[in-house]
Amino acid sequence: MPVEVLDHQLREYYTVALEVARKAGEVIKDAFKKEKTIDTKSSAADLVTVTDQAVEKMAFAFLKEKYPSHKFIGEETTAETGEKLQLTDDPTWIIDPIDGTTNFVHSIPEVCFSLGITVNKEPIIGVVYLPVLDQMYTAQKGQGAFLNGEKLKSSGQTDLKKAVVICEGGSSRDPDIVEKKLTNIHRLVTASHGIRSYGSAAANLCRVAQGAGDAYAEYGIHIWDFVAGMLIASEAGAVVKDPSGSEVDLMSRRVLAAATPSLATQLSDLLIHLDMGRD
Amino acid sequence: MPVEVLDHQLREYYTVALEVARKAGEVIKDAFKKEKTIDTKSSAADLVTVTDQAVEKMAFAFLKEKYPSHKFIGEETTAETGEKLQLTDDPTWIIDPIDGTTNFVHSIPEVCFSLGITVNKEPIIGVVYLPVLDQMYTAQKGQGAFLNGEKLKSSGQTDLKKAVVICEGGSSRDPDIVEKKLTNIHRLVTASHGIRSYGSAAANLCRVAQGAGDAYAEYGIHIWDFVAGMLIASEAGAVVKDPSGSEVDLMSRRVLAAATPSLATQLSDLLIHLDMGRD
Repeated sequence: MPVEVLDHQLREYYTVALEVARKAGEVIKDAFKKEKTIDTKSSAADLVTVTDQAVEKMAFAFLKEKYPSHKFIGEETTAETGEKLQLTDDPTWIIDPIDGTTNFVHSIPEVCFSLGITVNKEPIIGVVYLPVLDQMYTAQKGQGAFLNGEKLKSSGQTDLKKAVVICEGGSSRDPDIVEKKLTNIHRLVTASHGIRSYGSAAANLCRVAQGAGDAYAEYGIHIWDFVAGMLIASEAGAVVKDPSGSEVDLMSRRVLAAATPSLATQLSDLLIHLDMGRD
Repeated sequence: MPVEVLDHQLREYYTVALEVARKAGEVIKDAFKKEKTIDTKSSAADLVTVTDQAVEKMAFAFLKEKYPSHKFIGEETTAETGEKLQLTDDPTWIIDPIDGTTNFVHSIPEVCFSLGITVNKEPIIGVVYLPVLDQMYTAQKGQGAFLNGEKLKSSGQTDLKKAVVICEGGSSRDPDIVEKKLTNIHRLVTASHGIRSYGSAAANLCRVAQGAGDAYAEYGIHIWDFVAGMLIASEAGAVVKDPSGSEVDLMSRRVLAAATPSLATQLSDLLIHLDMGRD
């Protein structure tokens, strides 16, 4: 049976989400200027730092005390416990403590704290905070998307030939996956005004939301990378889909965002759709 | 015979360079928020706007009145007149009015006014101003590089496996050039922590200068795209070379910047060195 959440509860969740994002941002910004202790996960390019882990621990401790009956999904907790992800109808706080860990390690400013809240398995609140740049992207379902309080609108671009598309090489070093991703990049360069790569899924979705770039597609990411950003993009008027063109699936490890339905279709037709398995 | 420039003259050139960058920045920032009138040059992805042309005209009018005996090279003047570029020993003001025109057209904030001054065919002053982000990168030969007055230092990374490398798909749509560039991107993704693409040669060099990314290589650019940024990168401690490993050649339409000599060598060994012809 679907869970009902009242308006005043939603408003409270949103306030708490902003509060935890600011707290996380302080820790990230402070650590950004210092030496980083780096470990690797699935590949030599899949990085994690003590800051990722500390921020997630801090955020969950803070939230679990406030909402002991809620569910919580976090990138680092999932990596540590190795548990299968389960998304339920319950209010669920989904965190990527640092989206763009490679950027963080390399002192590249595009690093985000990403926090999405789902109810009935749908994102209702999305917060993506880039503390080094002090950019706070926010969205609540049905209420638009904002950057530091200013309303966002995606670009309106309908023609792939005139679009800039954000895409990523990603952190997998599996030769078959790299080959397919690079084939996609090749097709995108040839078909569009050009590609951009910023190294953060959450920030990429926010860029599409603000019309700084027209579309973004990525394969191999997880729910914590895109659940907040996808709400921000769709609330700014962008289309968010599975790259194949079907409904987006939060567990399918891939997402496409485009300024318009027409642009989304052109991208769906162009790209090789990597099956990354379900979480 | 080499031209001699006195210290007080250099200081004056630097002051004037900052002044013209600020003036250009105002025009760019104002136009950034408005509808753009777009034209194409060598390919459907090689864009120019009335703002590129207006900024170059304004900057040259201002500078030529101050320094009638100096030489001037500008991206849009060169495109309009079709004249062969000639770099002499005279003090030469080299301008890209908007580096990152595709970003400008797509409301992507990484757009620069780039101004380099050469004497005896060597850059002695470099100014790269990103007006939308209010980031002023500056360098004078032998005096270090700065971002809004704060001293810059490149990353010190010596190992390509642990590096982030900035590279671009570029605006050429010649299938052979695209194929080679994408082969390079494929090699870079596989060999490193990852690649980034920001769409502006001048800004890319400044990112290497500040240690936000460890290296950058590009083929197909021109002197106005990299003359200012290369001085900023080298004054921040980075190595600036021709991608092949030989001395950089301002007319050869390609450049490599890396945090360390070792990283530069690894990149030279890895990449296909596209011969783009000389300007």
